Amino acid sequence: MDNVFDRIRNHGLREKVVSAAEAAAWIQNGMTLGLSGFTRAGDAKAVPTALAERAKQEKLKVNVYTGASLGSDIDKLFAEVGLLNKRLPFQADPTMRSKINAGEIYFVDQHLSKTSELVRAHVLEPIDFAIVEAISITEDGMIIPTTSVGNSMVFAQHAQSIIVEINLAQPQMLEGLHDLYEPGKQGERPPIPLTKPDDRIGSLGIPVDISKIKGIVFTNQLDSPSTIVAPDQETEMIAQHLIDFLRMEVRHGRLTNRLAPLQSGIGSVANAVFHGLLKSEFTDLEVYSEVLQDAVFDLMDAGKVRFASCCSITLSGAKMDEVFPNLEKYRDKLVLRPQEISNHPEVIRRMGLIAMNTALEFDIYGNVNSTHVMGTRMMNGIGGSGDFARNARIAIFVTKSTAKDGRISSIVPFVPHVDHTEHDVDVVVTEQGYADLRGLAPRERAELIIERCAHPMYREQLLEYYREALTRGGQTPHALEKALSWHTNYAQQGTMLQPALRAVPNP
Amino acid sequence: MDNVFDRIRNHGLREKVVSAAEAAAWIQNGMTLGLSGFTRAGDAKAVPTALAERAKQEKLKVNVYTGASLGSDIDKLFAEVGLLNKRLPFQADPTMRSKINAGEIYFVDQHLSKTSELVRAHVLEPIDFAIVEAISITEDGMIIPTTSVGNSMVFAQHAQSIIVEINLAQPQMLEGLHDLYEPGKQGERPPIPLTKPDDRIGSLGIPVDISKIKGIVFTNQLDSPSTIVAPDQETEMIAQHLIDFLRMEVRHGRLTNRLAPLQSGIGSVANAVFHGLLKSEFTDLEVYSEVLQDAVFDLMDAGKVRFASCCSITLSGAKMDEVFPNLEKYRDKLVLRPQEISNHPEVIRRMGLIAMNTALEFDIYGNVNSTHVMGTRMMNGIGGSGDFARNARIAIFVTKSTAKDGRISSIVPFVPHVDHTEHDVDVVVTEQGYADLRGLAPRERAELIIERCAHPMYREQLLEYYREALTRGGQTPHALEKALSWHTNYAQQGTMLQPALRAVPNP
Repeated sequence: MDNVFDRIRNHGLREKVVSAAEAAAWIQNGMTLGLSGFTRAGDAKAVPTALAERAKQEKLKVNVYTGASLGSDIDKLFAEVGLLNKRLPFQADPTMRSKINAGEIYFVDQHLSKTSELVRAHVLEPIDFAIVEAISITEDGMIIPTTSVGNSMVFAQHAQSIIVEINLAQPQMLEGLHDLYEPGKQGERPPIPLTKPDDRIGSLGIPVDISKIKGIVFTNQLDSPSTIVAPDQETEMIAQHLIDFLRMEVRHGRLTNRLAPLQSGIGSVANAVFHGLLKSEFTDLEVYSEVLQDAVFDLMDAGKVRFASCCSITLSGAKMDEVFPNLEKYRDKLVLRPQEISNHPEVIRRMGLIAMNTALEFDIYGNVNSTHVMGTRMMNGIGGSGDFARNARIAIFVTKSTAKDGRISSIVPFVPHVDHTEHDVDVVVTEQGYADLRGLAPRERAELIIERCAHPMYREQLLEYYREALTRGGQTPHALEKALSWHTNYAQQGTMLQPALRAVPNP
Repeated sequence: MDNVFDRIRNHGLREKVVSAAEAAAWIQNGMTLGLSGFTRAGDAKAVPTALAERAKQEKLKVNVYTGASLGSDIDKLFAEVGLLNKRLPFQADPTMRSKINAGEIYFVDQHLSKTSELVRAHVLEPIDFAIVEAISITEDGMIIPTTSVGNSMVFAQHAQSIIVEINLAQPQMLEGLHDLYEPGKQGERPPIPLTKPDDRIGSLGIPVDISKIKGIVFTNQLDSPSTIVAPDQETEMIAQHLIDFLRMEVRHGRLTNRLAPLQSGIGSVANAVFHGLLKSEFTDLEVYSEVLQDAVFDLMDAGKVRFASCCSITLSGAKMDEVFPNLEKYRDKLVLRPQEISNHPEVIRRMGLIAMNTALEFDIYGNVNSTHVMGTRMMNGIGGSGDFARNARIAIFVTKSTAKDGRISSIVPFVPHVDHTEHDVDVVVTEQGYADLRGLAPRERAELIIERCAHPMYREQLLEYYREALTRGGQTPHALEKALSWHTNYAQQGTMLQPALRAVPNP
């Protein structure tokens, strides 16, 4: 192995190397931290872990801003030791989730493109320390990120001080794959000169004021692998319906077999869709998304995807073993950008993405709940789904039509929390079929959604609600006193199904 | 008066002049029409009126797309004679509203920036006739719009045929004030090269294929004047709180006395805010908005606003008399753009607008209902509020804290329709005060909103709901079975106020 100090190519910075514990000791009660990390990729690992250790011994509360969810159990650790006052803009850890829902952590659920604007405009509490994982630091002090970019650039540039974690386990060949662009202040910025997924518009690393780098810590630990859920029969059917919809768009002349740049949320349905594309006639595809998971690499290997732009690479253990030693072959097919750019309304609208995201549930008029279980308990957060849905060429939301063995219908009269309004939802897909809502009035949407997307065991019950609502009238008819009854029934009786229908066997 | 034919500077087109009745006769049952007109300004007047006449005699149903609401009672006429199958993307007429709410007209309530994308991408029913009001037609067949641009460009360019109404009553000096920019197809378009409200990036009129101009009709009728509601004590207090918030932003160094380009919805509060600015220390302001109403001209006259970009000019009768003969003095202070550009996410985010829009109601967590009275009955439509709120530097929503003499609280536990989610609402303002929600978690927001914005007569009742919700837990606590009870109580008992509190005198 080379001398690890070669990773600090600015010689003056070599004297900044400290232990994780030493760096963590600089952090004081009440401070605000900006951490690298996006969907388990590229998170700072050692200093946050050391900080959590400290919090076991002493009173310590900090605010933590990140790109998105952290891996390496850091969100879990933070939650367990009670370290957090405020956390934003996204998380996905069960322990943290339960503390958030208990009201013990203030969680601010933000569009992932938005945090950077609030930092830049000095709206959020100022960042005392940015803690950023890196491959290396260049001669001129540029920080080269690892498997994610997230908000690291805006955090590093606006923090009082920076701690860099150079992770020797991350593939050094990541260097050169990043494209760091700083849009500048609102009101003073030029257009973002990005018109295609493979455009390069920025620098290879994060330019920072070297004097702000207070410490450098060496680490040697891979990202937490993602757990890829294999497609099941239902997710495969969802994928098939979604691909049928895309075929219909081609038949209508609105798309070609190259489709349009694809954005996809993470998870089992996204995975199934990409597997479906692998076997489809669509080709020469481009991806402009947040997270690249295993399937996108399969599509690149198969020659189906010609280029993928992302802000993080989150792979399974097996796929890491396969991809990381061979990153060279993806060098002209891949770019990692700040989440502000991967999720930027300007770029999404310009390129006209096809955006595919997962709903927890949607209602008969097309409003989507992506975040709150039964309207109150946070799951993970809105993530980038709003950035994409609002500005996409086609905003698609997918979900299985039922959950909990049929005791929950994912199509409800009224969603108890709205993340995406009827104005922003173009197509909804379940394993039952898809409903293309574009250009439809609410009453047209309701009929289509119930017919095409609802599970047969809930269809009559939805129609019954809708027919009663129609007697009340309105652009968006509702029987308000019953609108949330499906959710309160579930809370009280453990099922949304009407008593008369409960004899029906589960799907 | 000059020869009216001088308005048709392309001589070949002069033979296309027909009567309104003749042009209306070309329109067949089942067709789709794209009409000029935005918030009572620049609507095609004669052909639509003649068409409504025809519909009294024969079976005639058409789809009507517009910029926004029409003046000259055309939406009223259309609704009365049952002419409409589908109407989009906005309306504001009481008769049409009641037909929509009765389910007799399919109304598609769209973001005003979005219709053009759907026309361009062939998602909506194709347009048979564009009917567009104009000042003149140039030698090369460019159509010069009048007091609004709306969607006229995309309608004219994508319609099978075009009917032009040359309105001799509109001030000819409008020619030269328009800036018509066509962004091109999604996926193929360059950045929109607009970085400041006063940038000019397009042509002075709508370039069309001359052969598509099937008829030209002369008219001579001013736009319907807007009814300006003078500020009352409550709207003045709202304006004052909003201006106090802006002052706080200046004190924090986040804004200067020049603020940032201002967008404002229409109506009495907007009017009051602009009146408030007239007397304030803020100066050298820029407006980047949809509709310019009287107050913006007052601000220009007072030297407070240096430039205003809009997509329509909607004035009171008195202000028309004052402004229209003197348009020359506003020539370097004013531009009219397509609504796609005035409301474009790319431009709004880049310039970092301060967006001020009116809510019907908002809930204790900051979700806003802008459209549906009691959750079901359409008022006007979302208009541009979503385009602006989602992408603004600061998204502000205003409303009086009560309606119907105190029987309705505009701050409720749970809005029965969501147009703007908690993720997109930065500041809410009532006559009671303002709540700055940026960077706050839902529980922090609820306390602030109840304390600062709710009417005192509803404060305890809101706190009672919130305290019960807290016992249930969650990121966004709710007592779901009571969440919509304020609205159902109003429906049943004519008031949202709890029986115990009804002795409290009305405000």
